[in-house]
Amino acid sequence: MFLAKVYVTLKPTVNDPQGLTIKGGLHTLGFTSVKQVRAGKYMEIQIEATDKTIAAESVKAMCQKLLANPVIEIYRFEMEELPVASPT
Amino acid sequence: MFLAKVYVTLKPTVNDPQGLTIKGGLHTLGFTSVKQVRAGKYMEIQIEATDKTIAAESVKAMCQKLLANPVIEIYRFEMEELPVASPT
Repeated sequence: MFLAKVYVTLKPTVNDPQGLTIKGGLHTLGFTSVKQVRAGKYMEIQIEATDKTIAAESVKAMCQKLLANPVIEIYRFEMEELPVASPT
Repeated sequence: MFLAKVYVTLKPTVNDPQGLTIKGGLHTLGFTSVKQVRAGKYMEIQIEATDKTIAAESVKAMCQKLLANPVIEIYRFEMEELPVASPT
């Protein structure tokens, strides 16, 4: 079992109204030291696979097909192996 | 200048309809090895500060006041120093 941590963010050149809104809210609350906010998505995906490489290929395909919009977004992910629950 | 990478996720016990929907979509696309999906938010915040500790305290306060809902969400963040643009 593997855990993929997927980060999807807007490309740097794409306008980010959600980030601007968060920045505005932070300024209103007094956090005037905030210069920029970029908002993105974060997903934790558990995958049943025997091999880390196969699991990573699978996650890459998921990102390209569903999780990210390649026109305006970029994605990156990290894989980690989860300990298998031992039958006791 | 510091960059804070903030991750906000639902507490493990809280129901995550967005994650379930993503999981359903992935299954429909043929990724049947996906066992669980948890959806969250990811934010990159640029902060003007002289000291990393002060910047981190500031980010913690932002999370508690605006970025996360402490009743149902947990947050974590990483700080990194951004290189200052040198006047050339």
